[in-house]
Amino acid sequence: MGGDHGPEVVIPALARVAERRPDATFLVFGQAAIVQPIIEKHARLKGKVKFFDSEIAIRMDEKPSQALRQGRGKSSMWQAIEAVKNGEADVCVSAGNTGALMAMATFCLRTRPGISRPAIAALWPTVKGESIVLDVGATIGADARQLVDYAILGAAMARATLGADKPTVGLLNVGTEEIKGQEEVKKAGQMIKEAQLSSLTYHGFVEGNDIGKGTVDVVVTEGFSGNIALKTAEGTARQIAQYLREAMSRSLLSKMGYVLARGAFNRLRERMDVRKVNGGVFLGLNGIVVKSHGGADEEGFAAAVELAYDMARNRVMERIGHDIDAFQASDAAHAASIAQDDATSTGKQEEK
Amino acid sequence: MGGDHGPEVVIPALARVAERRPDATFLVFGQAAIVQPIIEKHARLKGKVKFFDSEIAIRMDEKPSQALRQGRGKSSMWQAIEAVKNGEADVCVSAGNTGALMAMATFCLRTRPGISRPAIAALWPTVKGESIVLDVGATIGADARQLVDYAILGAAMARATLGADKPTVGLLNVGTEEIKGQEEVKKAGQMIKEAQLSSLTYHGFVEGNDIGKGTVDVVVTEGFSGNIALKTAEGTARQIAQYLREAMSRSLLSKMGYVLARGAFNRLRERMDVRKVNGGVFLGLNGIVVKSHGGADEEGFAAAVELAYDMARNRVMERIGHDIDAFQASDAAHAASIAQDDATSTGKQEEK
Repeated sequence: MGGDHGPEVVIPALARVAERRPDATFLVFGQAAIVQPIIEKHARLKGKVKFFDSEIAIRMDEKPSQALRQGRGKSSMWQAIEAVKNGEADVCVSAGNTGALMAMATFCLRTRPGISRPAIAALWPTVKGESIVLDVGATIGADARQLVDYAILGAAMARATLGADKPTVGLLNVGTEEIKGQEEVKKAGQMIKEAQLSSLTYHGFVEGNDIGKGTVDVVVTEGFSGNIALKTAEGTARQIAQYLREAMSRSLLSKMGYVLARGAFNRLRERMDVRKVNGGVFLGLNGIVVKSHGGADEEGFAAAVELAYDMARNRVMERIGHDIDAFQASDAAHAASIAQDDATSTGKQEEK
Repeated sequence: MGGDHGPEVVIPALARVAERRPDATFLVFGQAAIVQPIIEKHARLKGKVKFFDSEIAIRMDEKPSQALRQGRGKSSMWQAIEAVKNGEADVCVSAGNTGALMAMATFCLRTRPGISRPAIAALWPTVKGESIVLDVGATIGADARQLVDYAILGAAMARATLGADKPTVGLLNVGTEEIKGQEEVKKAGQMIKEAQLSSLTYHGFVEGNDIGKGTVDVVVTEGFSGNIALKTAEGTARQIAQYLREAMSRSLLSKMGYVLARGAFNRLRERMDVRKVNGGVFLGLNGIVVKSHGGADEEGFAAAVELAYDMARNRVMERIGHDIDAFQASDAAHAASIAQDDATSTGKQEEK
């Protein structure tokens, strides 16, 4: 029911996915009077959709607390998330109200054991392909351990969606000499280094301009700066698109040039399209929820569903579980070795 | 002596400024053997340059603490800053080591009364023209009062350089519903609103994508997220430039289109040129220091010098002094009125 266009975009998008991922099946939650007629129009969805009538649809402008109070149990958003909790669905996708979705997902699915907070991960186009940036706005601030969690979550997603065997991970920091970076970021770097995780390659610190360069597969930061980085990049892309339009319509020659190079411009527009930077993924809960951009068109929503499919197919949840356990084991071993060192040095001192 | 090209760029840049700002005169600090022959080559600088031989030049890779220890008193960087302190120069410009420049400027000039920390302000190109963003990396983190200081500093710079009479000021924040922004940012917004400063128009919160839109004249944030926003925007601009090159060289038609529209592309390149986003300005000290991009060419460095000229000519330091005093007065009045209210309500309670 969510997003700027609702089922008019969501259902045709599912039809596209049904063709490209023939083994996918869909549980659709929404208001029957609106959604069912659209489903019936798509022959390709026949036998692949199980529809559930929901009493309520969460509005795009509803406050998270209000949405949770009124929509718990009976809204299409809640029921879709609950289907993941009950094991009926492998993954949930919504183009609805982000705040409400995050609140409901956190309330219904709860954070995974060993993780204290969920994060929103964005797929970020780079000159090399795509990278994952997290957290882009689930929470403000993060301590060192939470940043380590984000690194592990992001790396698991990178292995499932980018096909990187041992993805490279960087911590977002400021690089100028006079400020040496946040304490928590430095501490997180130390912890990742010491853990020597087999699931990722720790690259070190990266700066804002490294994101677009594709310096690493996974960029880790706390939600405030992550959100500002994401929105600033979106803003810059729109700004340059406008510069380009202005430049191309300035003279007859540039207009002619534009006509000749139209194919190239279309390709460029596609690569710059912020709607394609789709699929913010909620990680760190007992189940995966993919948030599609509210303004996504059919292809944009289909991309979010396919991202969700890939994550389920590649068993992201299992990978996360394994990696978090591995980190905790190495962390415990590390703590024990420090305790041992202390004991040894105390022993030595006593000998003296 | 600083920057990637040293006096080979700096001196010709001054010759350009001398032509465009006929009343400007220059104190040049550097190593005589290298700098003087270049000055002599430029007839336009005749009678406008006073040269001072300096024993030491700070290297681009020197650590700030080391630079301060070794370069204090005898380096060209220090001496240029000291000329501002002594009132011999109105403003200092350098393309050198940012960290060293910040350390020396802070040490030599000290922060202005009423201000606890300096900030680095960047001129940011937008679809509407230019905005000022600060702090882009002088320090990490800022409390509410420091954010208010940045607002006042940025507004004074906007009046001097953007010609805005009563510039609009926004606080950078995250806009999603589920996270309501940093406490310090909210508190700073409250303080600016209550102060009702005549020097600026408070717009409220802005998000990352508002920067490129030019929603406000001055965007205020703490140095960590400011630095990440700046570098992310630079990275995105470079990324899109590469997309554009790739798109235009893909087919014969697009190559022909490129040739026809070359003028438009040159114009676009100029607007996207990150070297032009020049002149990081150190604000909040007892004197203005302009940091030019190290990689600036002649025109880039000239732009930084002209920015410095405009700030001196438009008496930014006086404006800042006036505005800080006005804020402190209103803040004191506000505190007094709260105290009064408390006293009154206490009195009333006693009456009961």
